[in-house]
Amino acid sequence: MKQFFDPASVAILGASNDPSKWGFWLSAGALKGADRRRVHLINSRVASIQAQPTYPTLSDLPETPELLVISIPGAAVPAVVDEALTAGVRAFLIISARVPHAADLAQRIVSAGARLIGPSSLGLVDSSNDLLLAWGNFTPGSLAVVTQSGQLGTEIATLSARSGLGISRFASIGGQSDVRAAEILRTLVDDPDTTQVVLYLESFTGGAALVAAMQALRAAGKPTMILTTGQSNAGARLAKSHTGSLTSAIDTVDAACRAAGAIRLSTPGEAVELAGFFATSWLPAARRIAIISDSGGQGAIAADRAVSHGLGVEVLEATTRQQVKQHLPEAAHIDNPIDLDGAGEADLGVYSRLVDALLGDDTIDAVVLSGYFGCYGEDIPDLLEAELAEVQQLGRTVHTHRKPLVVHSMSADSSAVAALWENSIPAYASIESAMRVIAGAGFYASHSGRITEALEQSGPVTPWGTGYGAARDTIMAAGVPVPRATIFSRGTGLAEAMADSPLTPPFVLKAGWPAHKTEVGAIALGLGDTAALETAYAEMASRLGDGEYIVEEMDTRGEVVEILVGGRQDENFGPIVMVGAGGTETELYGDTWLELAPVSHAEALDMVSRLTCYRLLTGWRGRPAADLDGLAEVIVSVSRLIAANNEIQEIEINPVRVTPEGALAVDALVVTNRDEDDSDEDDSDEDDSNGNSNGNGDKESP
Amino acid sequence: MKQFFDPASVAILGASNDPSKWGFWLSAGALKGADRRRVHLINSRVASIQAQPTYPTLSDLPETPELLVISIPGAAVPAVVDEALTAGVRAFLIISARVPHAADLAQRIVSAGARLIGPSSLGLVDSSNDLLLAWGNFTPGSLAVVTQSGQLGTEIATLSARSGLGISRFASIGGQSDVRAAEILRTLVDDPDTTQVVLYLESFTGGAALVAAMQALRAAGKPTMILTTGQSNAGARLAKSHTGSLTSAIDTVDAACRAAGAIRLSTPGEAVELAGFFATSWLPAARRIAIISDSGGQGAIAADRAVSHGLGVEVLEATTRQQVKQHLPEAAHIDNPIDLDGAGEADLGVYSRLVDALLGDDTIDAVVLSGYFGCYGEDIPDLLEAELAEVQQLGRTVHTHRKPLVVHSMSADSSAVAALWENSIPAYASIESAMRVIAGAGFYASHSGRITEALEQSGPVTPWGTGYGAARDTIMAAGVPVPRATIFSRGTGLAEAMADSPLTPPFVLKAGWPAHKTEVGAIALGLGDTAALETAYAEMASRLGDGEYIVEEMDTRGEVVEILVGGRQDENFGPIVMVGAGGTETELYGDTWLELAPVSHAEALDMVSRLTCYRLLTGWRGRPAADLDGLAEVIVSVSRLIAANNEIQEIEINPVRVTPEGALAVDALVVTNRDEDDSDEDDSDEDDSNGNSNGNGDKESP
Repeated sequence: MKQFFDPASVAILGASNDPSKWGFWLSAGALKGADRRRVHLINSRVASIQAQPTYPTLSDLPETPELLVISIPGAAVPAVVDEALTAGVRAFLIISARVPHAADLAQRIVSAGARLIGPSSLGLVDSSNDLLLAWGNFTPGSLAVVTQSGQLGTEIATLSARSGLGISRFASIGGQSDVRAAEILRTLVDDPDTTQVVLYLESFTGGAALVAAMQALRAAGKPTMILTTGQSNAGARLAKSHTGSLTSAIDTVDAACRAAGAIRLSTPGEAVELAGFFATSWLPAARRIAIISDSGGQGAIAADRAVSHGLGVEVLEATTRQQVKQHLPEAAHIDNPIDLDGAGEADLGVYSRLVDALLGDDTIDAVVLSGYFGCYGEDIPDLLEAELAEVQQLGRTVHTHRKPLVVHSMSADSSAVAALWENSIPAYASIESAMRVIAGAGFYASHSGRITEALEQSGPVTPWGTGYGAARDTIMAAGVPVPRATIFSRGTGLAEAMADSPLTPPFVLKAGWPAHKTEVGAIALGLGDTAALETAYAEMASRLGDGEYIVEEMDTRGEVVEILVGGRQDENFGPIVMVGAGGTETELYGDTWLELAPVSHAEALDMVSRLTCYRLLTGWRGRPAADLDGLAEVIVSVSRLIAANNEIQEIEINPVRVTPEGALAVDALVVTNRDEDDSDEDDSDEDDSNGNSNGNGDKESP
Repeated sequence: MKQFFDPASVAILGASNDPSKWGFWLSAGALKGADRRRVHLINSRVASIQAQPTYPTLSDLPETPELLVISIPGAAVPAVVDEALTAGVRAFLIISARVPHAADLAQRIVSAGARLIGPSSLGLVDSSNDLLLAWGNFTPGSLAVVTQSGQLGTEIATLSARSGLGISRFASIGGQSDVRAAEILRTLVDDPDTTQVVLYLESFTGGAALVAAMQALRAAGKPTMILTTGQSNAGARLAKSHTGSLTSAIDTVDAACRAAGAIRLSTPGEAVELAGFFATSWLPAARRIAIISDSGGQGAIAADRAVSHGLGVEVLEATTRQQVKQHLPEAAHIDNPIDLDGAGEADLGVYSRLVDALLGDDTIDAVVLSGYFGCYGEDIPDLLEAELAEVQQLGRTVHTHRKPLVVHSMSADSSAVAALWENSIPAYASIESAMRVIAGAGFYASHSGRITEALEQSGPVTPWGTGYGAARDTIMAAGVPVPRATIFSRGTGLAEAMADSPLTPPFVLKAGWPAHKTEVGAIALGLGDTAALETAYAEMASRLGDGEYIVEEMDTRGEVVEILVGGRQDENFGPIVMVGAGGTETELYGDTWLELAPVSHAEALDMVSRLTCYRLLTGWRGRPAADLDGLAEVIVSVSRLIAANNEIQEIEINPVRVTPEGALAVDALVVTNRDEDDSDEDDSDEDDSNGNSNGNGDKESP
């Protein structure tokens, strides 16, 4: 990627003197790097641009530029690219939008051994290499921005500059026709100027490479913050099972983020706030915080916001409480939140003494200070010196403990607030921001990047058919417990099949082939003896006709919790496994959790614990606890089955009946590629090219 | 309240020359109103303060001040107040904290015919009356702040000044020992300078008066925004039923807000953003919006944030779509969100033309513009004039349609952004803020304030006992359908009771007195004939002994949805009614909705429609729709029963079995005051005094 971020020479096709045109900003930006690289401006109508002589055409250049930047009307781009390829150009940055046949053009570029960023890119910036090929100015700093929407990236860069953070690299990847986000992320792992990354994506094609790149960033201690849109493929998928309809695109992105140790956020503002935290503060080990405020009301609001962001605000340990009490003898509220109750005005040093006591407590991962601090010197100039000295002391305190202190100050921009940032203490004008960044950092700290095991494709253990019998065989072979059964076809007959059957009643009779058995009367439950079974079979067979029938022992255990376990191949991220509440709740309350597959036993247990219905499994209202390990093993088995067989598109076991004695799968659906009549999505590379042409980003300017 | 907000004379007890003391700021502030009222500073040690001569004591004053402001150590306050009462002072503002026996002091003040704000008040401000009795400076404006936490109020005032909104009145009501929030809110209804209100409360004692005051503000077209904390009484209540444990304090506050047409928010920042909208913009009729962006990415993020705030982002109507297409012939995305695709740069006038087309559509309540607008003139000075002219045109457009346009601009503070505000167009630096304010305004528009009917206390229609039989009689008398039953005591005997019973099997047998029947075996279901009933009764009676037994006809209808309906007396807001999913879901998923009681049939239907399980009632997976009107009537009946009988503390009907044929209550619990052995909460005035002493706000300074 050096040809993009630090080329020895660059040419601007479409250079301009008009500041309302892209060609103006690209030229001005490129010329700022003229000490480092040769810059050539191409314009056939004016002799000089920004006091630099121009060349009329590409062929007039004194050399083949290492990077060619194209900002001309889209229709003219293909011809120019072909000419440039012939001339030996090997790196293209295409700003132009509305480029006809862009996919074909990209193909020609790649075939020639060249690389392309764009079209519809809003440019590239590398602050440490004096590379500025974009609209406007960029403040140098430590944040890298990789974005499919150029203007959204510009908004992030603008907010970053405003907050004092600044940009290390900026890459607007536009249509991703060739160079994709993952490849750029890879370059940031070793970039010494980048310490955190914000990524905006609309398409997650090639998700596995993306996850791997983010894992590499995570391993390098560089947090990745992701923005995306939740509606990218809502309703687009014709799901054959609950597992399909219940696993939304955004849930899958979230699973990928957990695996990668990346943090998904909702807006550019949130991303830049958190980036500022990462660039400034120590990391929290987890999400348990202590809150100090000089106002009961602000402390209460702070605690509410903390809890709403999943942070723990627990009563202080006895020894810590005692220390706090020593510093605040008169205060009424020294539980968490702690109310200074006027002690700050009496002696500013109380702030650092309290922070020291709290950060010294192993059960506290971070401290939030909310209220007036940062305003003392503003309102009462005589106090400024003391306030700034206290900031220094707070800075020494956080360095001693290597834990985060985050301040919410009623002052937006006092010198004390600026000094806090300089002393590794992030400070925000809103309590919501303070809590959100700690929650985001806590998420990052607890997700260190999980490399999902790459299983070899194993192929079918049992023949994959289209009915319940085959599905049952498949999950049984994968290790999922199922009831004992006898399978027979109508031709063979029930009597013959049951003649030496070890099954004990009550029985369940199922016709194997209908997808929705209850609706068509393809299931008969609670058949108490062989006579009842024969009667039910005669009735069912006369109605449904020939085919495979299954007699199972009915699960009559008590204290049952019904759980759904499923898996599917995600078009972007590959195999995923899902667990959810069974029964009506599954769809009504959306009580599900999914992860990239395969998962370990411990990860499966964690998945179950994320369900709202988890309480049903752990001894609800005095009932005995269910066999969580047995359920976890079912999840592990399904996750490995889907991960080792990419011909299986969807698996759904609904329900798995879980009791204190174990987990038993009493219905199953397995959908394979062979069931797919009207599509042939068996090649992920084909998906890729679709993704490319769909994933086009922004318009050209600004 | 005139003596507080516009006194003819004011005296400051504790006046000071030290700017780190409250007495300094109170004196300086009071003196700013010296043209309007007589100001007396009291200090026994210095002869003049801020160039104004002082008086050594209260008794040295040349007159009895209309308002006495007290800012001295708390311990000294009671004696001074008693002296002042004797001297004829009739209005006290007590800033001091840690006042001993504050409740007694308040009582003495009130008994003397005087009024008190505080203690622990952080002051009063009335910008139009030159009244400034608080710390720091306040920018005059249109926002009134009433707060139980002084510093939180100060934060709101600070944010309000920073955003250019400013303060009309500020009242820090501290401990609310006498003057409470509702009384101050009442004064704002006719205050011409106040056009919106932010209220922070920790205690909702006397909630009915508060709701009435907010309804009066709503009727005057003045929105009230409420901040509170959700933890005020979490876990504090020993609930006897699900209805108790499932109706949290914050849910009840939200019900009160809906009734009052007030908007609950989470942080001071959110409140001030929305206040700025109310002060500036037209109101939306509902929550359907159109989004315009000059970036696909920003438009997509905007749509996501809109949906997450409950706003509707629907495909445009055909005629509107056609108009948009005329203005954007080249754009690829003219559905909602609309992507300008470079059209803005080509001609800034496209913004107002599009806004005009969209606001002219009856199905669109507001337009959001997200992206670069506001930056044109900043980046390219030549464009500034055109951009400002376009702002003027946008202003004329919104005035024509009298609908809101809200802008998210990547510029924080350009002159174009300032001009937008001046042209009735709120503009925010974050898309989240833009969407949040429209959602808040949409909530306000759709909640115009509902006066809950005040029912006369009717007393028990049937004798209120402690068991199921009495509960059943009570709800039946209130109009709730119940199964036919025969009630008898063990002494009478089953045979005798059933001798001429019209009941048809199957039967249900219940012992009337146990609260949790299933756990103690006090219920026998599905008794197919009289013999089975007799057997079950013999077994149950031998185990449980004497008491009331009930035989009911069992509800054997199919297609049943089980719903919980309940009611209770809220300690703050009085009678409330609740509906929720029955069965395990009730507690597990918290699928409930509550309102202040009583409710109308239409309101009851609305309540049901808020449940996640609503889909089960309206034809889930091809099932017939349940009798919603029948269920609504049960809710209406329960709401009127609880509202007309404040001796009933809790009612719970769980489940109401709802089918297409109707709703039937098959279990019921009624808890009355007489059941309360270990408490005597039958006088809400007593609650009040508790609330006062608990509701103490902030410490003294700042």
